[in-house]
Amino acid sequence: MDAGSTAIKVAFYNGQEFHCWQKPSGWSPREVVAEMLEQAKVELFEKSSKTIDYEIDKIYATGYGRVSLSFADKALTEIACHGKGASYLAPSASLIIDIGGQDAKGIAINNKGRVVDFVMNDKCAAGTGRFLQVTAHALGLEVADLAGIAEAVEDPQPINAMCTVFAESEVIGLLNQGVSREAIVAGLHLSVARRVAAMVARLLPREKGSIIFTGGVSRNRSIAKALEKELGHFVLVPPKAPYAGAIGAALLAWEGFN
Amino acid sequence: MDAGSTAIKVAFYNGQEFHCWQKPSGWSPREVVAEMLEQAKVELFEKSSKTIDYEIDKIYATGYGRVSLSFADKALTEIACHGKGASYLAPSASLIIDIGGQDAKGIAINNKGRVVDFVMNDKCAAGTGRFLQVTAHALGLEVADLAGIAEAVEDPQPINAMCTVFAESEVIGLLNQGVSREAIVAGLHLSVARRVAAMVARLLPREKGSIIFTGGVSRNRSIAKALEKELGHFVLVPPKAPYAGAIGAALLAWEGFN
Ligand code: SF4
Repeated sequence: MDAGSTAIKVAFYNGQEFHCWQKPSGWSPREVVAEMLEQAKVELFEKSSKTIDYEIDKIYATGYGRVSLSFADKALTEIACHGKGASYLAPSASLIIDIGGQDAKGIAINNKGRVVDFVMNDKCAAGTGRFLQVTAHALGLEVADLAGIAEAVEDPQPINAMCTVFAESEVIGLLNQGVSREAIVAGLHLSVARRVAAMVARLLPREKGSIIFTGGVSRNRSIAKALEKELGHFVLVPPKAPYAGAIGAALLAWEGFN
Repeated sequence: MDAGSTAIKVAFYNGQEFHCWQKPSGWSPREVVAEMLEQAKVELFEKSSKTIDYEIDKIYATGYGRVSLSFADKALTEIACHGKGASYLAPSASLIIDIGGQDAKGIAINNKGRVVDFVMNDKCAAGTGRFLQVTAHALGLEVADLAGIAEAVEDPQPINAMCTVFAESEVIGLLNQGVSREAIVAGLHLSVARRVAAMVARLLPREKGSIIFTGGVSRNRSIAKALEKELGHFVLVPPKAPYAGAIGAALLAWEGFN
């Protein structure tokens, strides 16, 4: 499991396939996880039409809230789990860009799937899901709606402020000036992509190797496109991208990683 | 005049004394300034018991919004005006720390009152008045009340997040945990002082010369004290400290600075 700041992601692995789901972290990650495990028993085992001769063997935890999950057999770093999970989801990946609710990471992977370098921002809300949340709120929008709203925009409104707090004021000012919500949202996406692109610049694959985009913010296809533009490089978003960390933890648990 | 992000400060100088006042910037600095000039005519000239044989000769403008004040005879940089004004308010000053509504500056002054070096943060809301505004709001408090609330606190609550956005969440979490508002406010003051102290570190006076604290945030005596602790150096707050920029502009206008 990957106890993030915004959502708790769980990945079950039986050696063949993954079952993944998530819930908002809320105030008590511990309680949310306990609920999710209860639910898992019902969904995966009891209700399953398959034979139910397997049970939860080991739990490896990662993410921001991993230390509070005392029932986990092991707590692992995010870099280790995201690297592992993303390599599984996209074996050709040589750079993982992970944008979560409160942080952004770049992880460079060699052709054996090992982490060779990384950069991380968890000190500044700019370039993370939080930036989108704060500015979406200023626009009276939900984060989930942003991608659809920005989709057809050809001329994004440039956002000058890099800081989340100043961008929030800028957005309100732009709305008052009559700039369209659509153009502002597209501009905000560009702002996130620029900041993250600058952060991962030194990890960019020189020739071969693809870039994979993971984390909660990878659900936003408009940001994936903005990242492609900024990086001048194809950006892959696998279907289970938001679960990369949890999938990595599950794989490491399966392999008995210490 | 000093058209700041939060307040517009006006300083009138007749070669002998200053008359200073301020108003919130609002949405249109231009209109606010026009009002303030009208008011000035009444307060300074018409109602004055002195002879009224002087009038406004020149207007020099500085601050964030200076470019929108087209009726000013000249627009000057903040560093030039704050340097000039602070040297007038405290002739012994060798370092000026100015914390405004949206920025923080450190200005090193030589013994002739000239600016020799400076650092500035206007990109990140942390360590500025905005940080106090956002976190005070999360506590249900007004910025003006913060100093009084923190005054008697012996053990400030450490705030881990440097980022304004993350500090806002941290503050809400601490309140929910039952930590007192007073201890949190004192911790927030310490956070601002630490960030600004780190920023001005390379400008610290080696031996002689005092540190003067100006800008809107200098009204908060608890932050002045926290700065003294962090810097290990006496910090002077002259009575007209929030008007240092406007006073500097007025002096430069008087001297016919080009
Ligand atoms: S720039 Fe803004 S978002 Fe980033 S750390 Fe500073 S206050 Fe936070």
